[in-house]
Amino acid sequence: MQFNMKETIEVLERTPQTLEYFLSGLSESWLHCNEGEATWNAVEVIEHLIEGEKNNWIPRLEFMLQEGCNRPFPPFDRYAHLNVQSQTSIEQKLQEFKTIRMQNINKLNNLIEPNLHLKLKGSHPAFGTVKVSELLSTWVVHDFTHIAQIVRVMAERYRADVGPWKDYLGILKN
Amino acid sequence: MQFNMKETIEVLERTPQTLEYFLSGLSESWLHCNEGEATWNAVEVIEHLIEGEKNNWIPRLEFMLQEGCNRPFPPFDRYAHLNVQSQTSIEQKLQEFKTIRMQNINKLNNLIEPNLHLKLKGSHPAFGTVKVSELLSTWVVHDFTHIAQIVRVMAERYRADVGPWKDYLGILKN
Repeated sequence: MQFNMKETIEVLERTPQTLEYFLSGLSESWLHCNEGEATWNAVEVIEHLIEGEKNNWIPRLEFMLQEGCNRPFPPFDRYAHLNVQSQTSIEQKLQEFKTIRMQNINKLNNLIEPNLHLKLKGSHPAFGTVKVSELLSTWVVHDFTHIAQIVRVMAERYRADVGPWKDYLGILKN
Repeated sequence: MQFNMKETIEVLERTPQTLEYFLSGLSESWLHCNEGEATWNAVEVIEHLIEGEKNNWIPRLEFMLQEGCNRPFPPFDRYAHLNVQSQTSIEQKLQEFKTIRMQNINKLNNLIEPNLHLKLKGSHPAFGTVKVSELLSTWVVHDFTHIAQIVRVMAERYRADVGPWKDYLGILKN
């Protein structure tokens, strides 16, 4: 197992400010471009990350610690943020993400004693028994996934503009 | 054409500080993990980005503006940084990247008048005629590619640790 609690928190605490620096003040053309119908733009990715902070990671962790494998934790709707018509600016969303993430890291530190809790188990509604360490590892890799998604979506905007260099740019391989 | 000079610079000027915030102070286990033999870790990606600032983007732009299609510009060795045994810390490398990128954005602003220069052509050693706008678009998408690479390499470290969530995490699909 590579999982390490301190190193997990290192990433979780960096993601919001990294994205804040990258996306704040960007032109609408970068923030609202996507990869085609039914794909997310950068703003929608941030909304999804906020939704995860509210309804996924810490709520599931608390549920696992309370219920163990007695009951599966409620499903998380990965598309919930698409139903909310949010009028806030990207800067406000990034601030919201940063604030709630910091609150959640505090909760995480209060909830988890690595030597005691990482091997505890819960029941995922789709694929059964999971461990606390797997949930926390997934939280980190989920951050990585969505950082990669944001730059991939933005790269798509210049797909035609790079001309023959396309073949050298891994991010345009899809 | 989606290419826009102002929006291109928006990204170019954000990349170094974004990566500085994300990588500074991270544990060695994140900075030195890779995807297996002959793959790059996050530090090597930053070294490659610095190499590109020194020997790729602006030198090629200057060459194109001077030579047009008369002579192909010299090849860029994408592996040059692997031959240099650099002993500087990640924080020093990120600072170097930020400094040289800012210098290069200044040069870019001095060299290019968008209404005059974007359609000018040069000769790429491998694939022939290319336009200035294609070189500049590639500079941006190259940033995106390597931001995506850094988080993909880091995600790899927790591949086994996420357990059954692996199937939900796009970044682990490869």
